[in-house]
Amino acid sequence: MSKPHLLLLSSSKVHGYEFLEYAASDIKNFLNKSGVSTVLFVPYAAVDHDAYLKKVTPVFNKWGYQVEGIHNNNPIEAVKKAEAIFVGGGNTFLLLKTLYDKQVVNLIRERVLKGGIPYIGSSAGTNVAAPTIHNTNDMPIVYPQSFSALNLIPFNINPHYLDPDSTSKHKGETREERILQYHELPPEYPVHHVLGLREGCTLHVDGDVAILKGIANARLFLRGKPPQEIPLESNLSHLLTKNICVEQELQILQ
Amino acid sequence: MSKPHLLLLSSSKVHGYEFLEYAASDIKNFLNKSGVSTVLFVPYAAVDHDAYLKKVTPVFNKWGYQVEGIHNNNPIEAVKKAEAIFVGGGNTFLLLKTLYDKQVVNLIRERVLKGGIPYIGSSAGTNVAAPTIHNTNDMPIVYPQSFSALNLIPFNINPHYLDPDSTSKHKGETREERILQYHELPPEYPVHHVLGLREGCTLHVDGDVAILKGIANARLFLRGKPPQEIPLESNLSHLLTKNICVEQELQILQ
Repeated sequence: MSKPHLLLLSSSKVHGYEFLEYAASDIKNFLNKSGVSTVLFVPYAAVDHDAYLKKVTPVFNKWGYQVEGIHNNNPIEAVKKAEAIFVGGGNTFLLLKTLYDKQVVNLIRERVLKGGIPYIGSSAGTNVAAPTIHNTNDMPIVYPQSFSALNLIPFNINPHYLDPDSTSKHKGETREERILQYHELPPEYPVHHVLGLREGCTLHVDGDVAILKGIANARLFLRGKPPQEIPLESNLSHLLTKNICVEQELQILQ
Repeated sequence: MSKPHLLLLSSSKVHGYEFLEYAASDIKNFLNKSGVSTVLFVPYAAVDHDAYLKKVTPVFNKWGYQVEGIHNNNPIEAVKKAEAIFVGGGNTFLLLKTLYDKQVVNLIRERVLKGGIPYIGSSAGTNVAAPTIHNTNDMPIVYPQSFSALNLIPFNINPHYLDPDSTSKHKGETREERILQYHELPPEYPVHHVLGLREGCTLHVDGDVAILKGIANARLFLRGKPPQEIPLESNLSHLLTKNICVEQELQILQ
């Protein structure tokens, strides 16, 4: 059994930085540790896979890595052979539906948790690393077979977490209100803790150790407790101890 | 065959107004036209049905109407006997899932489109009046059996429509970007036109006539065309002509 290696980015775009640039050294260090030379890119969160691959490839090339698009191969074979996987952002519903349609949900999980290949997610790609996508901000433009996701970590993520704007006249729910609504569901709905990753957050998981890095604090929602501010460099390993995924049998996710 | 009578509110709360107050005269005129004395309230978009009923009842009582909660009755019998239905806002996913669980989706549709009883929706209650909930802003905190909804009108709604904020440093998608993503889906996904109702918009449907009223303009997204600004008092009846619901056989929505 290998240890899981995950790098989960809140977003690929951060104000004042080029695409993925704020996380450049994080991504390079992460891939170098595993001696990766080629990254399998999963562009399923966008409609135009080729255009997305064209955007991502030069960025990784500049850092010294080759990039393959999962859509240019047999997806199952591509995942089986992958040295590392990068799942890009976009629409979480479209991403998860396509992962199911291509029958790679359990396979990616197995390659990451048992095979130990590095997994990088950004925004929607970080959302699907969680047990479910119940805390995405995205519009449900397509209907996935399930809201259960890759389950690489035992808690949900809210990427692009936004603080309430006290000056706003808009009466739609704030992000915090939406997450608290989730935690107020009656007991027949099993819910997870939620880590709100502000833009610029990166969550590093190396086996049973999880550390918050990047350029912004996170906000943690444990059910039944007040939300907590999580400063940079915090050790969040305790969030992995319950239901630690590598210890469990791989389950059919529907 | 009766004509459908719908009053679709973007939201129940608008800056500077008490709960539902901005739409008070619209709601009263709408119900008085049909000689309604009791409104069946559907609080399924919230977790606490009793608390929600307590909030809504005094507002309608003040206007001279009795209110019954669907959750205090056999829901199917309650819909069969209803003089008018008000579906309140909250979480659209929770609302639609509960409508399916209680087996009232087709029944409400039949009572409104064939029985001609007035339907008032607010926010999530307006979302589910559309063919699908693909354009809700809500967090998918529960998994409904389908994203197909009551299909009382032949186009989708985005309530609480928000204009892009050019001063924002946040890199999450704007509302407009999310709706355009929906319209860019490949042809295997059937998509609908989307009416973005800013807070304070009310859409009045009386048979084959649809008029935008309230205190804010709307924004219309016809697939393949640039978004259009829709001023108050605009006649939107042309949006009803395609697939006009009352002309069609009631269909199983799954």
